[in-house]
Amino acid sequence: MKIIIVGATGTLGKKVTAALQGQHQIITAGSKSGDLQVDITSTESIEAFYKKTGKFDALVSVTGSGHFGPLNTMTPEDFKKGIDSKLMGQVNLVLIGQHYINPKGSFTLTSGILSNDPVLYGANLSTVNGALNSFVIAAAIGLENDVRINAISPGVVEDSPEYFDAFPGHIPVTMDRVVAGYLRSVFGAGTGQVVEIF
Amino acid sequence: MKIIIVGATGTLGKKVTAALQGQHQIITAGSKSGDLQVDITSTESIEAFYKKTGKFDALVSVTGSGHFGPLNTMTPEDFKKGIDSKLMGQVNLVLIGQHYINPKGSFTLTSGILSNDPVLYGANLSTVNGALNSFVIAAAIGLENDVRINAISPGVVEDSPEYFDAFPGHIPVTMDRVVAGYLRSVFGAGTGQVVEIF
Repeated sequence: MKIIIVGATGTLGKKVTAALQGQHQIITAGSKSGDLQVDITSTESIEAFYKKTGKFDALVSVTGSGHFGPLNTMTPEDFKKGIDSKLMGQVNLVLIGQHYINPKGSFTLTSGILSNDPVLYGANLSTVNGALNSFVIAAAIGLENDVRINAISPGVVEDSPEYFDAFPGHIPVTMDRVVAGYLRSVFGAGTGQVVEIF
Repeated sequence: MKIIIVGATGTLGKKVTAALQGQHQIITAGSKSGDLQVDITSTESIEAFYKKTGKFDALVSVTGSGHFGPLNTMTPEDFKKGIDSKLMGQVNLVLIGQHYINPKGSFTLTSGILSNDPVLYGANLSTVNGALNSFVIAAAIGLENDVRINAISPGVVEDSPEYFDAFPGHIPVTMDRVVAGYLRSVFGAGTGQVVEIF
């Protein structure tokens, strides 16, 4: 299976890549690292990226950032960061990638717990994660050729201790459980699923 | 109570405005109609709008559009329509409006059933509606001075027969039920609620 991992050197990406490597043809990608570079905030960059990857069987997106901060000083420009990166970056990987993916292929995106369970500074990422969850359930019925799509929605993960203070009372999720969610999406048969790992 | 209604001449807006008029000071707004004009896709226009409205007690947003069409021909540009209008238009009414709203005031936004219950051509609006629902639950814990925020999420409404074919098997929602949702948000005490009317 030819699997593209976008964000392969990130906190989640490293572990997902390690779990997939060996038995499959892996193409790692990142904004600055990996086999191929892609700027997910640029549709031209995404188009050029897929021209280089060629046809593929699975895309795993563990990428995208957002703004984290108090609402009373949050500006439209702050908010746009998560919209352009974590939301539209991943959506555009699918809208453009649907023309390159093989039949019975799969897209696996990354949302997160804040869609349902907000924290004080997380309005931007709550919005982005809720958007991604709903995109996945809708895109699942629109994709053709038996192509599947799911979102993995992790809680705060054990490898991101810098976020623990911002998630009071959240029990960090083990990386093994998170990785299992991605494997379930890539190798399972489900589509339109939001796989909650919290 | 001084209440701003953005989108006051739309299908929902007309009925909501009729229900609120009389006992309250109403400011109607629209892109081309109403007491004041505002282009919700422009942050400059929203800033100028609030400078004209001055302090207020409630903002009801029944505005914003998106793209409706098949996924296999949906482009990033198509998708951006709903992001810029129904999503960021309403989010920016709150991000900017939080600095103009009176203590104990309220924001009421409009999402819709597609967040949870997709239809074939609705990927853009599913995404936008899911984003708005999650924004509201997150913004509710970030807003200060006891300001509240809720989203009304209607199903396809009886006054929009042009959409019935796109929502097979959906039972159109009566306008009275939809209007009641907005009244619950403006005059009730709830915050961070997604009021489902389907």
